[in-house]
Amino acid sequence: MAYTRDELRWNGWGLRRDTFDLKGRDAEVWDFIRRSVGLATLPETRPRPLAACELPPSRIDSAVRAALEKALAPGRVTTGDRERAAHALGRSYPDLIRLRAGDLSSAPDAVVYPGSHDEVQRVLEVCQRASVAVVPFGGGSSVVGGVEAKRGEAHRAVVTLDTTKLRRMLDLDPVSRTATFEAGVWGPDLEDALQRRGFTLGHYPQSFEFSTLGGWIAARGAGQQSNRYGTANKWLVAARLATPAGEWRTLAVPQSAAGPDLKELICGSEGVLGVITEATVRLHELPQARDYRAYLFRSFEAGALAIRTIVQAELPVAMLRLSDADETYFFGTFKRLLHPAGAVTAAAERALSTAGFGDGRCVLMVGIEGDEATVRTTRPRVLRRILRAGGLPVGAGPGRAWLDQRFRMPYLRDPMLDRGVGVDTLETSTEWSKVLRLYRAVRGALRAELGPNAAVLAHISHSYPDGASLYFTFFFARDPADELGQWVRIKRAASQAIAEHGGTISHHHGVGRDHAEWFRREKGPAGVGVLAAAKAELDPGGILNPGKLL
Amino acid sequence: MAYTRDELRWNGWGLRRDTFDLKGRDAEVWDFIRRSVGLATLPETRPRPLAACELPPSRIDSAVRAALEKALAPGRVTTGDRERAAHALGRSYPDLIRLRAGDLSSAPDAVVYPGSHDEVQRVLEVCQRASVAVVPFGGGSSVVGGVEAKRGEAHRAVVTLDTTKLRRMLDLDPVSRTATFEAGVWGPDLEDALQRRGFTLGHYPQSFEFSTLGGWIAARGAGQQSNRYGTANKWLVAARLATPAGEWRTLAVPQSAAGPDLKELICGSEGVLGVITEATVRLHELPQARDYRAYLFRSFEAGALAIRTIVQAELPVAMLRLSDADETYFFGTFKRLLHPAGAVTAAAERALSTAGFGDGRCVLMVGIEGDEATVRTTRPRVLRRILRAGGLPVGAGPGRAWLDQRFRMPYLRDPMLDRGVGVDTLETSTEWSKVLRLYRAVRGALRAELGPNAAVLAHISHSYPDGASLYFTFFFARDPADELGQWVRIKRAASQAIAEHGGTISHHHGVGRDHAEWFRREKGPAGVGVLAAAKAELDPGGILNPGKLL
Repeated sequence: MAYTRDELRWNGWGLRRDTFDLKGRDAEVWDFIRRSVGLATLPETRPRPLAACELPPSRIDSAVRAALEKALAPGRVTTGDRERAAHALGRSYPDLIRLRAGDLSSAPDAVVYPGSHDEVQRVLEVCQRASVAVVPFGGGSSVVGGVEAKRGEAHRAVVTLDTTKLRRMLDLDPVSRTATFEAGVWGPDLEDALQRRGFTLGHYPQSFEFSTLGGWIAARGAGQQSNRYGTANKWLVAARLATPAGEWRTLAVPQSAAGPDLKELICGSEGVLGVITEATVRLHELPQARDYRAYLFRSFEAGALAIRTIVQAELPVAMLRLSDADETYFFGTFKRLLHPAGAVTAAAERALSTAGFGDGRCVLMVGIEGDEATVRTTRPRVLRRILRAGGLPVGAGPGRAWLDQRFRMPYLRDPMLDRGVGVDTLETSTEWSKVLRLYRAVRGALRAELGPNAAVLAHISHSYPDGASLYFTFFFARDPADELGQWVRIKRAASQAIAEHGGTISHHHGVGRDHAEWFRREKGPAGVGVLAAAKAELDPGGILNPGKLL
Repeated sequence: MAYTRDELRWNGWGLRRDTFDLKGRDAEVWDFIRRSVGLATLPETRPRPLAACELPPSRIDSAVRAALEKALAPGRVTTGDRERAAHALGRSYPDLIRLRAGDLSSAPDAVVYPGSHDEVQRVLEVCQRASVAVVPFGGGSSVVGGVEAKRGEAHRAVVTLDTTKLRRMLDLDPVSRTATFEAGVWGPDLEDALQRRGFTLGHYPQSFEFSTLGGWIAARGAGQQSNRYGTANKWLVAARLATPAGEWRTLAVPQSAAGPDLKELICGSEGVLGVITEATVRLHELPQARDYRAYLFRSFEAGALAIRTIVQAELPVAMLRLSDADETYFFGTFKRLLHPAGAVTAAAERALSTAGFGDGRCVLMVGIEGDEATVRTTRPRVLRRILRAGGLPVGAGPGRAWLDQRFRMPYLRDPMLDRGVGVDTLETSTEWSKVLRLYRAVRGALRAELGPNAAVLAHISHSYPDGASLYFTFFFARDPADELGQWVRIKRAASQAIAEHGGTISHHHGVGRDHAEWFRREKGPAGVGVLAAAKAELDPGGILNPGKLL
């Protein structure tokens, strides 16, 4: 598979040739979205084409360029407009607003494509010597400003180090069920290589198609089935990094008491400590069976209780995903617009309503994966707890539909942005005793800041015996006079509510540029001091990904 | 419960009033041990009594003493001989050899007992200002030299900070299933407090009775049922530390992508980054059911395969413990000596031998714990895999016996040391594809170094989908002319074999003083550099636990 940068949008989601299929129901869908954000008409707010954008001149001088070219295979140093534009920013809302407005002030001065660990190491040496900042870039799908090609004040220029030529599988150990890959491998390529041999990593973030193994680790990401397959820190066995201070590699063992686990410093290091070049990961056998089913609850509280009892009973589920009433309504309506034939009939709707599953109902999607025996023995134990919490089984259809569409939603963002509609997401996690309070606080903060002309949807998508994540999606009418200011206010209100109610500033999106202030508050002076000291040790010139995390 | 130091042996295991009960079969047992280490007679090698030992004069001057006394509640600064002796060293073989010989050169200059986080913080401030080293000390059960009261070259004196007055439960959150304790709480007190409320942490290292929560975290320990309850890094939710640079605390959330997980730096920090004063931990409901059974295998290889297939099928077992042939033989004989009536009859033994379960047989203990349904559904799935790997069920009796005796074995060490017999243990872990090679290499190295007059026993006690631990116990005739040199050579040979065959220098004992050299090799210059930088940030005067870990 393996895309070239040229096949991907430089200012939007995914493949240029691909779009969200509205099944010819465009008018109905856009009318629904228009009403959701309280606009009389949807304005046309198309992005500026690349040809009409002005890039700042590249600050890479001929000596540095020559040194980089010498460090790499031929053709691996580029300064073309499209390459620079495609690596200027990530895929956060403010990143997209800037890209669409033609603001390429953050374009890197050059983009390099190393093809091996040693080449990455050589790039770092060149840049360290020349005082040039280096921004590691995998899929570039960061939604927190994690890949903005920013140079530090002390740096002469900034180079983006694109890892996507580092894509080989180096080893597969079927006895230990681990595999070692170069870190720039795209999600689908990694799974193809594993699944051909009967294994899976099972890490499917929404960005799966356009993100890389190294990015998953650097951002400390979570896949949609993290209940079974774990977050990146759970499946990472060992890593190899290139750092300005030299190679850093950890030993591949299942567990060790040889001091602190340094893998855990690498997970979530967001390119500021080194460039992840290789990683060994834990595999699972490809599941023999897969059971995805939906259930309705009368309230978010009841659904959350069902999740809690299931995870605290330590049942081996793969996914528990509970939408709140607004999200259930929004996606229910959206689906009905696209597939009117498959919609719940009015009679059924009346029956549901009578049973208390009307307007305020919340849908819970439960996924179980594994060998036949695990799925067979787990299903009734899960069902019992769902019924006890007041859940109503509504079958496997919604589960299939969700699995089918799960990577498609990001394709809807660009057409929304084309029509004056803003859309962003943010997420957190906390302990169970605080989950509902945190949910209400963040939702309340978003609604207060966004005003009535907005939709705020939320779900629980990752759960643990001691707590759960909360994920918020919000649509709003953009303020054409102050688009970035509008977003900053929304973000601040939500982040404040998260910090005040015991949430972490991110469960799986990461810190990047946008959460750096909140990250410092969360980790405290001692924690930040420790990380800054680690960075100073490995990157004394501060060339790695300036302005992110720390 | 909560012991005073005075109730505990200063130079041996556990409570002074307690010993290993040989059921009146002393002569037979000691004859068996004598033959195991190839001695004609067992010499008498009693330890020197404390009254006959000379302690170095305390280097705490009156100003520092006054400052410490001011920092603490009355009576919490001690310089008595027994207190100093009891805090001189831990419980490693070389520690015991030194203590028994009356070598108290490592006695701390004073012992302090802070009663709160703030008091710990104040002790650190006093010591930092006065350039006095501080050795955090919980149960003092380290078997790797982790609590030796060593001062660094730059320090005027060394104070041992005994955490065992920090023992309150601060919070129990039944919804999130977490509890927060002060870190000096003893294992039994922690479990009592939890079990009275229907919960358990489930962390039962062999040292359980005489170790503390903070020690478990600092050493990154594992309990015997770690397959179910996890190693310390798995159950730690949040920690609070006092450091010379001030308070360090982490946020209690189930999972976060707000940068690296700093809890993972705290787990395994062995007192060199700060003193753990409080910790929040994940709980489990007290298991409704518990099923411990034993199985025989014809070979270690076959038993290891059974473990691997069980953990790779992700069955929720609590414990899988496979003894190799020598360990099976040794403990089988030992048990027969103590309980001749319960022994396998000669006829049964002949039948076993005919079936291939003779001299080389290996016993596997399988523990399943949890709710009734988990135990009921897991048992047949485990059994199927055991039978497929050639295992023979031998019932629940050995399981009960093991559970009953599991904390008693350390009490046998002192009487062995009284009789010229050396005994030590060491452990490692590696990926499944290397487990058997590593087993043979370490066993071979130990046997080569120990010579014929020794017993080398081994087991797998902690397993993961990608690998397992290996635990070695060895008995040998001590060389009275060079006891420490003899141990150094044995230890070096084993550590070398571990490093050469892809093992970690410790799965759960830690690094301390004894593994520091191997730890540096395992982590590499970048890893050691990162940890040293973190230490310099939090402990710029290097007062915390000098000579350990780094």
